Amino acid sequence: MTETHLARLYKEYIACLNMQKWSDLGRHVHDGVVHNGKRLGLAGYQAMLENDFASIPDLHFNIELLVADSRFVASRLAFNCTPRGRFMNLDIDGLTVSFSENVFYEFTENKILRVWSVIDKAAIEAQLPGARQPR
Amino acid sequence: MTETHLARLYKEYIACLNMQKWSDLGRHVHDGVVHNGKRLGLAGYQAMLENDFASIPDLHFNIELLVADSRFVASRLAFNCTPRGRFMNLDIDGLTVSFSENVFYEFTENKILRVWSVIDKAAIEAQLPGARQPR
Repeated sequence: MTETHLARLYKEYIACLNMQKWSDLGRHVHDGVVHNGKRLGLAGYQAMLENDFASIPDLHFNIELLVADSRFVASRLAFNCTPRGRFMNLDIDGLTVSFSENVFYEFTENKILRVWSVIDKAAIEAQLPGARQPR
Repeated sequence: MTETHLARLYKEYIACLNMQKWSDLGRHVHDGVVHNGKRLGLAGYQAMLENDFASIPDLHFNIELLVADSRFVASRLAFNCTPRGRFMNLDIDGLTVSFSENVFYEFTENKILRVWSVIDKAAIEAQLPGARQPR
């Protein structure tokens, strides 16, 4: 893996999330950030992340794979965590689940401008009691 | 986007899938290919793809984003297709759905050795009749 400039910036962003150092988020995320086609803006993006940590107190972002070029970062994030109540429209309710998120980021001016995230919901479902195995 | 060597190989692989030219698959995919942690091997991988095309007659792979380095390719694939019957444990039954797949590939000897794929199941669910919106 080539340690590109964006790969380094991305690791600093993930460290910021894991420290929940929200006062630094604007150093990593653009004011006009768009997440899965929705223009959240920095405040909306921070609110989404704060809500994630409130719903999942043991949330931790682990980078499993990282591919970067001069404009984009692609990352596979591994999670092992315990959502409270519902998560992704599923009744998790205190179960510890392992799942991945494959996510692309477009950077501009050294900040994340656009995010395209897919969370492996089928993998979570397969861990729930009475799960039917997805295809 | 830098047109790396692997990016070019990857586009040839996707063209092969879209032509369903299975006799060429072994030029793009390693004999010992592993898909989401399962060692399918070339024959098993081809069987998975042939089954996908049988279940989804209008299946077409569209590359939306592509990030590559010297060993990995990350791709966001866009689909607009009409699965017959069930897909990802959902009753689709003739509905045309749009969804993405964020997927990483590790190459060795110019062939795909490992694949880590996540399909946006929540996006599909949101298109089904009576869907509750996922978070």
